Amino acid sequence: MAAIERLTIGILGGLGPYATVDIFRKILDQTPARFDQDHLHILIDNYSQIPDRSAALKGCGPSPIPAMLEAANRLCCAGADFILIPCNTAHVFLPELRPHLKIPVLSIIDATAAYIAKHYPECSRIGLLATSATLSFGLYAGKFKELLVPDPIDQEQLVMEAIFGRLGIKAGHFDVPRELLLKAARRLVDAGAQAVILGCTEIPLVVRADDLPVPTVDPNRILAQTAVEYALNGHNLTKSKQLIS
Amino acid sequence: MAAIERLTIGILGGLGPYATVDIFRKILDQTPARFDQDHLHILIDNYSQIPDRSAALKGCGPSPIPAMLEAANRLCCAGADFILIPCNTAHVFLPELRPHLKIPVLSIIDATAAYIAKHYPECSRIGLLATSATLSFGLYAGKFKELLVPDPIDQEQLVMEAIFGRLGIKAGHFDVPRELLLKAARRLVDAGAQAVILGCTEIPLVVRADDLPVPTVDPNRILAQTAVEYALNGHNLTKSKQLIS
Repeated sequence: MAAIERLTIGILGGLGPYATVDIFRKILDQTPARFDQDHLHILIDNYSQIPDRSAALKGCGPSPIPAMLEAANRLCCAGADFILIPCNTAHVFLPELRPHLKIPVLSIIDATAAYIAKHYPECSRIGLLATSATLSFGLYAGKFKELLVPDPIDQEQLVMEAIFGRLGIKAGHFDVPRELLLKAARRLVDAGAQAVILGCTEIPLVVRADDLPVPTVDPNRILAQTAVEYALNGHNLTKSKQLIS
Repeated sequence: MAAIERLTIGILGGLGPYATVDIFRKILDQTPARFDQDHLHILIDNYSQIPDRSAALKGCGPSPIPAMLEAANRLCCAGADFILIPCNTAHVFLPELRPHLKIPVLSIIDATAAYIAKHYPECSRIGLLATSATLSFGLYAGKFKELLVPDPIDQEQLVMEAIFGRLGIKAGHFDVPRELLLKAARRLVDAGAQAVILGCTEIPLVVRADDLPVPTVDPNRILAQTAVEYALNGHNLTKSKQLIS
């Protein structure tokens, strides 16, 4: 039997930078390793200059697509075999990106939906904390029996404020955003959510798995785990086929 | 006045992988940023497959130089303006690497020595926790009035065991290595060290700044800070000139 070639992971990062650190660490945590050399080859382009995805989708900022393509091509040229994008909102642009890329992209949305279907088959009402763009472009829509999201006021004053506010996560704060997000999450639980997706990669930076009385689902951790399985099993892996372009 | 061009940081990583996560995060923490876009462009090649530096220097493993050159060239081709290597021991190979590189490397050793000279001018006796290779190749030798290192038994049974042991940091453990390293550090303090350099980038992963009664010096944090200043000030910076090749 031929040795299975391990694949090189490419992380199209910087959106945001701390979410990129987070997935990098989660990939290491989920790689069976005794020595440095057991770890995977990971290329990261932390290209923070990619224009803001939410602003672009509201029509008040430039498209991130050219810069995302630029970073993806750098990763491809450097030897990445596939790409991860640790940003839920950026997946709105995935259908436009994929035709221009020579290597596959593992979708954080599809990986998360597959994980929930496998691990929480009994949960029919799934709560979602995410950017307004992720909600309005329906990235997680149709993936579950019922999807619960915050009402428009909570969405703006709790979730978006926690991510983008002056004291928000993207500005390097953690305590205020944590309180805002826990308030929004608890309201989803009160409304019947049986699990809550932390569907913006900034959110797991401040909300922990044991913060809620129901399971929290961290798409960045799931994407890391999916990437490790994919990279370790090389080109022979078939079960992740549905996750790639 | 022309706008100052911000430089792209290249991290030659994977030696070890968690030290690479650590410097990535420390770069972000030290970058003044309100939005993602304020952060720097950082390229990371987490090339864990680079052969073990300590083993090579003991003559019982292949040279890491070809793989380090490969990673450095990938970073250079992808657009890095300068390179950081978050591994003290790897700096033994720097004189052999530099002539082959088109871009400068900021030295973790020189950055640390400059930092101590500036911030702790009153400290003449500096303790050093580092790999046996870093010690025997004298990377920090001659930088301070007096350098205190563990005796050979402590070096092997405490420091090297904490880094490379079966329950060591490179194997993903943290509690046992922490105790071993604190024991070695306290003995340096008892012997008169007025500050202790955590001179292997695995060590600050488990030893905190407030763990000792004297200041601890974290070369990975200092290298991150030096890199941020260098990248933000672009080609106009002169004060770091002594740090680059």
